[in-house]
Amino acid sequence: MKSEHDKIKRLRKKVKKLKRKLAEAVKPASGPAVSPLAPKDGFPKLPTIAGVRFCAASAGVKYANRKDVMLAEASAGSTVAGVFTRSSTRAAPVLDCQAKLARLKGPATGKVGIVVNSGNANAFTGKAGLKSVAAVTAAAADVLGTSPDLVFSASTGVIGQPLPHDRIITRLQTMVQDLSADKVDEAARAIMTTDTFPKGASATCEIGGKKVKIAGFAKGSGMIAPDMATMLVYIFTDAAIDQPVLQEVLSDLTGPTFNAITVDGDTSTSDALLLVATGKAGNPPITSVDAAGPFRDALHKVMLELAHLVIRDGEGATKFIEVAVTGAESDAAAHTVGLAIANSPLVKTAFAGEDPNWGRIVMAVGKSGEFADRDSLTIHFGDILVAEKGWVSPDYHEELGANYMKNADLKVSVDLGVGEGSATVWTCDLTHQYITINADYRS
Amino acid sequence: MKSEHDKIKRLRKKVKKLKRKLAEAVKPASGPAVSPLAPKDGFPKLPTIAGVRFCAASAGVKYANRKDVMLAEASAGSTVAGVFTRSSTRAAPVLDCQAKLARLKGPATGKVGIVVNSGNANAFTGKAGLKSVAAVTAAAADVLGTSPDLVFSASTGVIGQPLPHDRIITRLQTMVQDLSADKVDEAARAIMTTDTFPKGASATCEIGGKKVKIAGFAKGSGMIAPDMATMLVYIFTDAAIDQPVLQEVLSDLTGPTFNAITVDGDTSTSDALLLVATGKAGNPPITSVDAAGPFRDALHKVMLELAHLVIRDGEGATKFIEVAVTGAESDAAAHTVGLAIANSPLVKTAFAGEDPNWGRIVMAVGKSGEFADRDSLTIHFGDILVAEKGWVSPDYHEELGANYMKNADLKVSVDLGVGEGSATVWTCDLTHQYITINADYRS
Repeated sequence: MKSEHDKIKRLRKKVKKLKRKLAEAVKPASGPAVSPLAPKDGFPKLPTIAGVRFCAASAGVKYANRKDVMLAEASAGSTVAGVFTRSSTRAAPVLDCQAKLARLKGPATGKVGIVVNSGNANAFTGKAGLKSVAAVTAAAADVLGTSPDLVFSASTGVIGQPLPHDRIITRLQTMVQDLSADKVDEAARAIMTTDTFPKGASATCEIGGKKVKIAGFAKGSGMIAPDMATMLVYIFTDAAIDQPVLQEVLSDLTGPTFNAITVDGDTSTSDALLLVATGKAGNPPITSVDAAGPFRDALHKVMLELAHLVIRDGEGATKFIEVAVTGAESDAAAHTVGLAIANSPLVKTAFAGEDPNWGRIVMAVGKSGEFADRDSLTIHFGDILVAEKGWVSPDYHEELGANYMKNADLKVSVDLGVGEGSATVWTCDLTHQYITINADYRS
Repeated sequence: MKSEHDKIKRLRKKVKKLKRKLAEAVKPASGPAVSPLAPKDGFPKLPTIAGVRFCAASAGVKYANRKDVMLAEASAGSTVAGVFTRSSTRAAPVLDCQAKLARLKGPATGKVGIVVNSGNANAFTGKAGLKSVAAVTAAAADVLGTSPDLVFSASTGVIGQPLPHDRIITRLQTMVQDLSADKVDEAARAIMTTDTFPKGASATCEIGGKKVKIAGFAKGSGMIAPDMATMLVYIFTDAAIDQPVLQEVLSDLTGPTFNAITVDGDTSTSDALLLVATGKAGNPPITSVDAAGPFRDALHKVMLELAHLVIRDGEGATKFIEVAVTGAESDAAAHTVGLAIANSPLVKTAFAGEDPNWGRIVMAVGKSGEFADRDSLTIHFGDILVAEKGWVSPDYHEELGANYMKNADLKVSVDLGVGEGSATVWTCDLTHQYITINADYRS
C-alpha cells in the first residue's frame, strides 16, 4: 500500500510539474511587461520648469480606465519650436501644429497649451480629422483661457478611425483643475501606446550666471524611423531664448538624435517634437545661435537621451545597438551606410540570435548604394577587430564575437576607409516579440 | 487495490499525454519542411534544351551527404548574357563572371561551363576568394575540354569563410561523366540554401516556323531585394540569337521581374542570372531587339515565374502578396511606393497576422518620399474598395477585409491619383519563422 501511495504521490507531483511546464511553454509570447533595456531606476526625477504645469486623465479614447489624455500648459510669453514628420500622409494634428507654428515667431501673447491623446492617431481620417483637431484645441484654449492658435495637439494610436473627440473635450473641463508643476510623469505615461515604460530626461546649464533647466519626455516604440522628429516628444525649458534661435538649435540637433534612430524603418504619420521655453530662468535672453552654446549642449543631451530611450523601448528589443560609421565619402554617406546596417532584417535578427554574423554587416554595407571598397573595410564589435582588408582578421575567433554578443548594449564600428565622413545611428534587434506585437496590435 | 491501480494507470496516462504535449510545445519552431506557398505539383517537367547538359554531386562544401555542386555545360557556339548584383561588396565569383562576360560578345568558341556550389558564398574572402574562383573554373574547363574564359561560377551560402575549393575540384573529375540533358532538377536542388523547394519554369515560342524552348531554374529565399538579378538564376534556350540582343532583352526584363521582388529588402553579395542560348533550335537567328518579340515574351514568362517562385519560398512566408501601384507621378515613383509598402515590417507583420490593417499601407505610402496626396489615395484589397478620398470607404467593413486576408495569395492596389505612373512588385509576409530562420542560420 505504502509503495502504491508513494507512486500516486510521485505521479501527481509529476503531473503538476508537467502542467506547470506546459503552461509556461504554450503561453502566448507576451514578452516582458517592461523592456529588458529599460532604465533600472524607472522614470527619472525631472526638475520642475517654472511656468509649466501638467495633468493627465482617462477619457476612454480607446480603452477604459487608463490615462490617455495629457494637458500641458506653459506661461504666456513662452517661445515654441517644433519639428515634425515629413510623411506625405501626415495626420491632421501635425498639419495643424505646423500651420500654427509658422505664425508664432515671437513670444506667445497668452498661455501655450499642448493636448495629446493616445489610443487613436486621428490620421487618414479625411476632413473629419481636422474638425476633431479644431474642436479639441478650441476646448483646451477655452479651459486654459487662451487662444486656439496657441494650443498644439497630437494624437497617437490606431490610424484611420475617427477620433471620439467629445470624450476628450468632456474631460478637459475637469482636467484643468489638476494642472501641477510636478505631474510630468503622469503626462509621460498618458501618451504611451506600445511603450513599455515612460521616457524622461533632463539637463541643466548656466547662462549669464543663471541656472537654466531643460526637461522633456517622449513616447515611441514601433513605427520608428529617421527623417523626422521621431514619435511624440515634449521638451520644456525655463530658458529665455528667441523663437528663431530656439527653432534653429532644435532643427540642427534633430539630425544626430531623433533622426539617427530606427526601430523598424517605418515612419509614423504623427511624429512631432515640441520645445517650449518659458523664459522664467531670468538668464540674459539668448538672441543668436552663436550665443546658445551651453543651452545647445544641454538640449543635445536631453534629446539624445530621449532618443536612446525610444530605442531601449523598441518593440521586442533585447539589444541596444550603436552603429558607428567612419571613413565614408561624406557624413551623409556614412549616415546612409549606418541606416542600411541598422535597418537590415538580417543584421537585426543576427543580433537577436547573439550571432556575431559580420558577413551580414558586409552585405548591408554593399547594398547601401554608397561607395565602399571591400578591401578597405574594417569592422569592430566593441573593441574586437573582426575584419579588415577584405577578410576576417587573423586574430579574430568566433568565441570572441559570440561572447561579446551576449551584452545587452552593443557597438558595431565600420570604417569604410575611403574618406573622412562619419555618422552614428542607434537601433535595436528584431525579435519574435516584434512579430507578436505587430501581427496583432492594430496601429 | 483496484482503485489504486486505476489511479496509477490514469496518472501514468496523464503523464504520457502531458509529456507529448510538452514536447510538441517546446520543439523549436522549425516550420514547415516545404513552404505552404510552394507549387502543389512540385518541380515542373522542364523540356530538355538541345546542347545543354547538367549534373550535380556532393562535395561536402559545408554539410556531408547533400548535393551541393552543380555543373552545367552548353555547346560551343552558344551566346551568353548575364545580370548581377550591384552590391559594392559583391563576391569574387560575381566579379569573375562580369569580367568574362565583358569579353564574350559573340558566340563562344568552345563549350560553355557553369559551376555553382551552395554552402559557402566565397564572399568577403579577400584575395583568396579570387584564387578559389580561378582554381574551380580552371578545373571545370579542364574536365569539359574548354577554356577557363568560358566557365562561369557562383557560390552561395555563408559569407566570409574561405571556400574549400579542393573538395569541389576533386568532385568535378567524376561529375563530368554524369552530365545529362535531363538532370536539370538535380542541378536546381544542388544550389539551394534556405530554399524549401527547387524552382523551375519553362516556355516555348515560335520563331521563323521553328519551335524555340526556354527553361530555367532559380534559388533564393532570404536576402532577397531588388536592384539586381535576385539570387542565382540559370536560364537556357535553344534559340539562335546574337549576344548583344540576348543581353539587351535580358537586362530590360530584369526590371519588372527579379528587380520587382523583395523578401526582406536585403541585397545579396552573390546574386547572378546567366542566360545561355545554344542556337540549336534552327530558327533564323534573332539579330535585333525588334525581331525578338516572341522570344522576349516567352523569356518574360519564365523570368516572372521564377521570380514569383522565389517569393513563394520567401523565408517564413505564408502569404504571396502582389502590390500594384497606379496613378503615381512616374513609373519609377510607383516602383518606390510599391517597395516602401512591400518592405515595411509593419505592413508585412499585419499580413502575417491576417490583419486588414490598411492604415499601415497609408503610413508606408507616406514614408516613401514620393509625391502623394492623402485625399487622392484609393486602396483596394483584391476587389474590395477599402479607402478613398482620404478616409475609409463607407461600404467597407472590417469583416470584408478580415475574410480577404485569409487567402494565401493577396493583392493590394494603391492608386495615388496624382499621375499616370504604375508599377507592380511582389513580396511575402514577415513571420515568426523568418526570425527563427535568421536568428540561427549563419549566412
